[in-house]
Amino acid sequence: MTSRNHCQTLDAQDPLAPLRDQFALPEGVIYLDGNSLGARPVAALERAQAVIAEEWGNGLIRSWNSAGWADLSQRLGNRLAPLIGAGEAEVVITDTTSINLFKVLSAALTVQRQRQPQRKVIVSEASNFPTDLYIAEGLAALLQQGYSLRLVNSPEELPQAIDQDTAVVMITHVNYKTGYMHDMQALTALSHECGALAIWDLAHSAGAVPIDLHQAGADYAIGCTYKYLNGGPGSQAFVWVNPALVELVTQPLSGWFGHSRQFAMESNYVAGKGITRYLCGTQPITSLAMVECGLDIFAQTDMASLRRKSLALTDLFIELVQSRCAAHDLTLITPLEHAKRGSHVSFEHPQGYAIVQALIARGVIGDYREPKIMRFGFTPLYTSFTEVWDAVEILGEILDGKTWDQPQFKVRHSVT
Amino acid sequence: MTSRNHCQTLDAQDPLAPLRDQFALPEGVIYLDGNSLGARPVAALERAQAVIAEEWGNGLIRSWNSAGWADLSQRLGNRLAPLIGAGEAEVVITDTTSINLFKVLSAALTVQRQRQPQRKVIVSEASNFPTDLYIAEGLAALLQQGYSLRLVNSPEELPQAIDQDTAVVMITHVNYKTGYMHDMQALTALSHECGALAIWDLAHSAGAVPIDLHQAGADYAIGCTYKYLNGGPGSQAFVWVNPALVELVTQPLSGWFGHSRQFAMESNYVAGKGITRYLCGTQPITSLAMVECGLDIFAQTDMASLRRKSLALTDLFIELVQSRCAAHDLTLITPLEHAKRGSHVSFEHPQGYAIVQALIARGVIGDYREPKIMRFGFTPLYTSFTEVWDAVEILGEILDGKTWDQPQFKVRHSVT
Repeated sequence: MTSRNHCQTLDAQDPLAPLRDQFALPEGVIYLDGNSLGARPVAALERAQAVIAEEWGNGLIRSWNSAGWADLSQRLGNRLAPLIGAGEAEVVITDTTSINLFKVLSAALTVQRQRQPQRKVIVSEASNFPTDLYIAEGLAALLQQGYSLRLVNSPEELPQAIDQDTAVVMITHVNYKTGYMHDMQALTALSHECGALAIWDLAHSAGAVPIDLHQAGADYAIGCTYKYLNGGPGSQAFVWVNPALVELVTQPLSGWFGHSRQFAMESNYVAGKGITRYLCGTQPITSLAMVECGLDIFAQTDMASLRRKSLALTDLFIELVQSRCAAHDLTLITPLEHAKRGSHVSFEHPQGYAIVQALIARGVIGDYREPKIMRFGFTPLYTSFTEVWDAVEILGEILDGKTWDQPQFKVRHSVT
Repeated sequence: MTSRNHCQTLDAQDPLAPLRDQFALPEGVIYLDGNSLGARPVAALERAQAVIAEEWGNGLIRSWNSAGWADLSQRLGNRLAPLIGAGEAEVVITDTTSINLFKVLSAALTVQRQRQPQRKVIVSEASNFPTDLYIAEGLAALLQQGYSLRLVNSPEELPQAIDQDTAVVMITHVNYKTGYMHDMQALTALSHECGALAIWDLAHSAGAVPIDLHQAGADYAIGCTYKYLNGGPGSQAFVWVNPALVELVTQPLSGWFGHSRQFAMESNYVAGKGITRYLCGTQPITSLAMVECGLDIFAQTDMASLRRKSLALTDLFIELVQSRCAAHDLTLITPLEHAKRGSHVSFEHPQGYAIVQALIARGVIGDYREPKIMRFGFTPLYTSFTEVWDAVEILGEILDGKTWDQPQFKVRHSVT
């Protein structure tokens, strides 16, 4: 079993270790939930203060121009684009992941209505993040044209589920429960061979694993900035559309920010160029501005380096849990194969909820997902190897001592 | 003509005057654009700092429970409700005005599909705020069921435009250009008599004029918190649905926050109780939290007092402009009749754009709206009578001296 000393050596040799100083992490906490809410960049506080005191307080309405609020969604999209293999002016950061999924799914179905109107099936996974399924359900119910969801129970079932009835394949790249990572390029190619369009939800992969949307030939992508990208609680989501598709149709949430001449105040909608037509309404600026602080840190490294450390962290965690906690009823549900693993690791345990609460009480913050999943996120920008060792040791102590078996660890809270 | 001395007396007697100290307004500025972006409450900076440093930085994911992020949209909705005559648990603050309009318009059309499917017309004003019309256009195009917009050119044309083909009447309570205020109760009653549902956009009236949605019998309402409510740049919008309608149908942006058991992570959508089903995705929390600081100030007064001062301010502004600037080509397009006036005043001038820029250069911030409208907002929480006098004097000097006739005042900027 790897020793704590060896972990300290790994940290000393880690070229990414200095980046941790750019995050404000609380004392006494090992934070393994950056896959749910990323840690705070130190710079975010000062950035928000400037937006509030200077730009809002003193600049007032003038800041739409003078502080660059008016095109902030586009500028931040350009900063994010290299992390997902997108080009300049192809990404905007706006609204929520759910809303952006509604936009791209509507657009994809509209494209298919024109090309192959008989296709009425949206293929996805039953274990996809629920809001993705709910949005598809809501759109299908609104359209009343016979659209339905076809949900598979495992990634292996996807190839046979995608057929001549399939309009859209809508998959989350890294599964939020298991950490399973799909082969984006292969699945997109398969979708295209069958005549379907491919929508990728990058919520659990943007900033966590290397992504190349162009190389994968993806059609649409959406994702989250408040997880691995460290944008802040609930920070706006992103949306990307393949340039070959983006101007084919108008998406239905056609608000004034997506108009080609927003301030001409015309009464008819004329969709803006490229990805700008995926903008809709006025964005909460203070939250949006802080997204840049997370992206500034990514600009100091590259996704290949982050991936190398991410795999080393998750390998170490799996190895340590399987040795230190071998006596306990833990089942790994995350793939061992690197090509199929994102940046979080999940174990099932019948008392998963109480154990996660007991861990949090000891300062190890992971999270719990129904039905019995303990989920641990590894964020190479600020997670150290020694923290992984310490977290597993605490987990081992909790399991050995059965200290999770206390009433206060069994009260259910909701956590996003 | 009212003297500056008299304005100072009015300020000295103004019971609302002390509330101005709760706003951080820059020196040397007379801010008459609170109808576009409200001024910053002093408390907003500290609130945001607490959210960022404490709740995000130290609380991390735990703050969804411990800091109350999870139900912040509902709690703030309850704070806002009394300002618009809504009840407890009837309002949520979430997403943007455009997105919320899409939700309620979709819901209204779904209700009508069930009740009176032959009704295919959405009645509105050609001068409605453009994004409202764009959203209706986008929804109609998506549905492909023959829905169309019927736009009237003046409020007087509305009664004859609402007929047996009308599914929904969708009106902005106070017109963003003219400041014309509709009779919400009469127009809602007329809509109902004709079998139509009434959607009210309160963007330019919430926090500006007394509103009683229940007394008016309104069906749906949406609006903005970053104007008169001083929530901060782009702060989230609100949505209200009449309790008699809210659970009849599900709105199509059915994200996980609107699910009745959000964290059960079920794969099928089950709409939450009441207005919670109008929630969708995770909200930008820092921006949302600051909305409370504006509402805290409203809690120290009441809409009747604010309306009294608002009318006194707009009366004074109109009187002073019409006397001080009588020699110039200004046309008042705001109703003189109190019952038909919101809290902003607009004058047309052929050189409106350049004049507004010249005013801003002198520290008087109003705004410009196509085609030639100079628009001035009066926000009784922080606008003084003496400021009105000074603003008009500066306007008079600019017009008398034709100082707007300089190249730098003619470069077009976009301002929301």
